Amino acid sequence: VRGAPAIALVGCLSLAVELQTGAGGPGLAALVAFVRDKLSFLVTARPTAVNMARAARDLADAAAREAEREGATEEAVRERYRDLELCEHWEERSRQRELTLRGPRGGTTRPYNQGARLTAFELVYEQIPATLIADSMAAAAMAHRGVSAVIVGADRVVANGDTANKVGTYQLAIVAKHHGIPFYVAAPSSSCDLRLETGREIIIEERPSQELTDVNGVRIAAPGIGVWNPAFDVTPHDLITGGIITELGVFAPEDLRAALTTTISSRDGT
Amino acid sequence: VRGAPAIALVGCLSLAVELQTGAGGPGLAALVAFVRDKLSFLVTARPTAVNMARAARDLADAAAREAEREGATEEAVRERYRDLELCEHWEERSRQRELTLRGPRGGTTRPYNQGARLTAFELVYEQIPATLIADSMAAAAMAHRGVSAVIVGADRVVANGDTANKVGTYQLAIVAKHHGIPFYVAAPSSSCDLRLETGREIIIEERPSQELTDVNGVRIAAPGIGVWNPAFDVTPHDLITGGIITELGVFAPEDLRAALTTTISSRDGT
Repeated sequence: VRGAPAIALVGCLSLAVELQTGAGGPGLAALVAFVRDKLSFLVTARPTAVNMARAARDLADAAAREAEREGATEEAVRERYRDLELCEHWEERSRQRELTLRGPRGGTTRPYNQGARLTAFELVYEQIPATLIADSMAAAAMAHRGVSAVIVGADRVVANGDTANKVGTYQLAIVAKHHGIPFYVAAPSSSCDLRLETGREIIIEERPSQELTDVNGVRIAAPGIGVWNPAFDVTPHDLITGGIITELGVFAPEDLRAALTTTISSRDGT
Repeated sequence: VRGAPAIALVGCLSLAVELQTGAGGPGLAALVAFVRDKLSFLVTARPTAVNMARAARDLADAAAREAEREGATEEAVRERYRDLELCEHWEERSRQRELTLRGPRGGTTRPYNQGARLTAFELVYEQIPATLIADSMAAAAMAHRGVSAVIVGADRVVANGDTANKVGTYQLAIVAKHHGIPFYVAAPSSSCDLRLETGREIIIEERPSQELTDVNGVRIAAPGIGVWNPAFDVTPHDLITGGIITELGVFAPEDLRAALTTTISSRDGT
């Protein structure tokens, strides 16, 4: 599973399966607390991306409201959770499909090689011509291979347009600016988080050092070396020179808040 | 074996061993041709770095001169080659030692992971505090971890200061400039090549696609994806904001030619 929206969906879906098979309870209060605890735990696994946190908040609140209805039953709460999760699932997939039609390109993505493994697979599957390079070759490609635009994904886009994404995105944006190549962020509006003002407020997940020192379970790094392995970095809005591509349109970072306020605020209840 | 000077030394040394065990000849002309052919072949393996090409030229010329002496013997040519190679070896090691004392830091270096494997080993061995990061984390480290200088190696520094080094160096220089962090190239004067005017004249070695698609013999990239795998890139002199560190001193790129002309021109015979 790849991409913040899809990861959030699968996380919430796993809880729907647990609930269907009788987990949680007995009793309405215990069931609602169980839903909230499980969802909070899922959020700790994805602190940087907004999608899991938003879905967890929405689903936990919905379960609580269902439990407060007159004549509410445990079964009704379980069904309400499942229906909402499936509904969210189909909405998210349609946002993703809209985005996919506009088409991204390739790159390897160390340390976990998502680019070589997953993005490359998707590009081959969609028959989009693509060339795999190492993360370290981006500037050389821009200088010598004719790159007309850079398009990256996003785990969280905040109100001023600052964007958290897979580590390496920030330096890609710097290098694109140096070559005068427009830099775009492509993300469903569900990855936009207008409740945070700037990128400084985004928590950056740090991951185990083995991801850098080992490859396929074999240690390649010298013993005794220190390691820093942040999974994401934040690209400041002024480096997003092309714009932010969403299923609602393409916006300059400074226009994002106004453009999304109606949609997002109605969804977030803020 | 790592680093252009050391690779050149080991290449030339291997031929010295072959010559000592009787390879080449019979006859002076055949022996000199054998030396020249073998050295030319070694140069094809390292087109980007200058060190192998320079050593090959010097040694082949020396062997030819030895063969033209009155009363020259095959044995004398073999000995002359061996002595010159050993002499070059010790000179190069002393240039390297001078440089090492001034001290570099760490990084992983995809696709071949020299950073994690070799640089990390050397830093741990020399007890220089160091932290391993992926190539994609350099900009984030500069923004958040307090980087005061960037020091890279070089495979070839040409007359105007343009520098070929392991791919990724160019984007590191762009990112350092963006953060106002001085960028240094550290190289023995034997890696400087005043016969080329600019970096555009440097041939960039491209390597097999398996280095990007496979890790430890296991394919990780999706089948069918295209690959571009240049081993080096060229950093233009204007991004070398700190200077070029050699065993003869630290020079601004624009001063390199004047500073090295006496030393290098006497060695190259140009």
